[in-house]
Amino acid sequence: MLSTRKTVVFDEGIVLTTGERIAPVTVAYETFGTLNKRKDNAILIVHALTGDSHCAGYYGAADAKPGWWDPLIGPGKAFDTRKYFIICSNDLGGCQGTTGPSSINPATGARYNLSFPVITIRDIVNVQKKLLDHLGIERLLSISGGSMGGMNVLDWAVAYPERVSSVIPVSTCGRLSPQGIAFSEVQRQAIIRDPKWHGGNYDPDDPPADGLAVARMIGHITYLSSESMHLKFGRRKRKAAEPEAKFDEKFEIESYLQYQGSRFVERFDANSYLYLTKAMDFYDIGEGCETFEEGAARMQCKALFIAFRSDWLFTPRETGELVDALRKAGRDVEFHEIESAYGHDAFLVEYPKYAYLLERFLERVHRFYNR
Amino acid sequence: MLSTRKTVVFDEGIVLTTGERIAPVTVAYETFGTLNKRKDNAILIVHALTGDSHCAGYYGAADAKPGWWDPLIGPGKAFDTRKYFIICSNDLGGCQGTTGPSSINPATGARYNLSFPVITIRDIVNVQKKLLDHLGIERLLSISGGSMGGMNVLDWAVAYPERVSSVIPVSTCGRLSPQGIAFSEVQRQAIIRDPKWHGGNYDPDDPPADGLAVARMIGHITYLSSESMHLKFGRRKRKAAEPEAKFDEKFEIESYLQYQGSRFVERFDANSYLYLTKAMDFYDIGEGCETFEEGAARMQCKALFIAFRSDWLFTPRETGELVDALRKAGRDVEFHEIESAYGHDAFLVEYPKYAYLLERFLERVHRFYNR
Repeated sequence: MLSTRKTVVFDEGIVLTTGERIAPVTVAYETFGTLNKRKDNAILIVHALTGDSHCAGYYGAADAKPGWWDPLIGPGKAFDTRKYFIICSNDLGGCQGTTGPSSINPATGARYNLSFPVITIRDIVNVQKKLLDHLGIERLLSISGGSMGGMNVLDWAVAYPERVSSVIPVSTCGRLSPQGIAFSEVQRQAIIRDPKWHGGNYDPDDPPADGLAVARMIGHITYLSSESMHLKFGRRKRKAAEPEAKFDEKFEIESYLQYQGSRFVERFDANSYLYLTKAMDFYDIGEGCETFEEGAARMQCKALFIAFRSDWLFTPRETGELVDALRKAGRDVEFHEIESAYGHDAFLVEYPKYAYLLERFLERVHRFYNR
Repeated sequence: MLSTRKTVVFDEGIVLTTGERIAPVTVAYETFGTLNKRKDNAILIVHALTGDSHCAGYYGAADAKPGWWDPLIGPGKAFDTRKYFIICSNDLGGCQGTTGPSSINPATGARYNLSFPVITIRDIVNVQKKLLDHLGIERLLSISGGSMGGMNVLDWAVAYPERVSSVIPVSTCGRLSPQGIAFSEVQRQAIIRDPKWHGGNYDPDDPPADGLAVARMIGHITYLSSESMHLKFGRRKRKAAEPEAKFDEKFEIESYLQYQGSRFVERFDANSYLYLTKAMDFYDIGEGCETFEEGAARMQCKALFIAFRSDWLFTPRETGELVDALRKAGRDVEFHEIESAYGHDAFLVEYPKYAYLLERFLERVHRFYNR
């Protein structure tokens, strides 16, 4: 399946939850399948922290890899593009086509950097809403995404219940645990304490690459699990290509993390990492309500929750906390905790274990709204 | 109880397992209680990664805090100084009185830094053995320590069974998990990638403080548990004293980690951190044997193992793996997995939950050898 990244510019921009305005706002997005005449077959896919609009397909024959959720999206797949119209955009605050701290501020002609306003998950949702308005989509059949994308999915259902028929939040929760916040914070500290960060005003050609690489390495530990590291790397050692700090032997897990760290630096903006992790940490479905349960109960649509047993960043227990609150409020909620050793990464790996659940759920929702 | 740090210099130094020699070797140590005439009441206490010889007591009235295992060591305590003679020294490779990379190399008149040879747990043990020879102690009634100190305890029992009557390894295991290695590695990377590290040749007055602080923050996440962070910090927020990277609100867990990071930099040497974490990562009780079990079975003395349920850095499961191997080999082993929310830190917190076990075990060992 081929894909093309499209771009739309909203000159009027967006007013944030803080009252500040960002204008213009550019949104990068991709679509798959066809919007039907009744415009009731649209599904929004939302990416995780460092993802982008390229959720499926190939840009061209030269691509080594397809989009990040390709095994789920396409003709005959769970998000069946013969039936559904799939939309995925890059988040506000990101760095892959949508306006973010690395964009040029038209008022100054320079990059926003830290003059970019603080954003929340709700602001990211509101930009997606603008895109849907632009595409003429009044109501979504479903919204799905994993991790921080899953928080985004939840917030859609809370903020705009009249526009959402169902949600499929994957590997996510209603509020990040203190341990999750702690991991976000050391990742931010690794970036901020890199002297090349220069208070956010780094040279784009000489960014705080070491800080960002260390942040990514920490991130990767939280995406795997102790179990998957045992299975994949164990305590296997290899000679280091060049001795590092005089230690000439290293463990395979060390090489893996270093490789992930260096690759990430080529594609991600350090300031975006700060803004987006903050948005994730501050997200709380109970915000502004008396209790977490009350906040959760504002979600009214049908929901399919997926969590993976060895995920210790967004644990099944935390997903379950949310599911319990929804069931107590009488909502139509399916919840599957899936056996997997892959930790948080499972939602990007264990497709055969959950694709059929998505397919079945979407058919049920589709039938329900087309009775 | 008052304590004084003593120092002994071994001019001939030590030949390492790699064949290299470090000379001289200075060892900082403290002792508590009195060695009896039969010299059979000596107990060696071994510190964890960033600990020191000051395991108990106060240096003077001005001290805010006593030594790191003070609730366990003293008159009437588990390691009863009315009965036992307690010795604790700073590890080879450390930076608190014993020779390490921040020591002056007499051959050059400059700090060793990365010219300091790579060391192993066995080398650390051998320096402790030199200290015991110096003190005229032929045989230890027991050795105890937690975390990396516990690995040191295990290695004593394997290397010098004729000199050890019993061991009490706490919160430890026979080999670090791949996840543990991964955490060590990102901590090292945070240090090495700090430009002030300068290939190890940093200015002692301007060390890689940011890298070391980030390393310590990562370390602290692994010492706590998700549960203890929920209990201690939750998602409570506070205004930041000064906005950091423009985010003027922060979570309490963030302040806690930052505080721990900055305090650590005042007392610890960055190169020591690299050498000691490498020694910990490479330690494997099965090294040189066909199997892990065969390696473990070389331990012959009585043993009391303590592990804490929420410890996810040195898990009770990994302690159990070692205990199983010892029991299969017919060894006299006690193992207690203790309920606690404190994670790896539990061995420095949950004294009432395990002090009595140490006391009872030591009495049993003492009686056995004095029948």
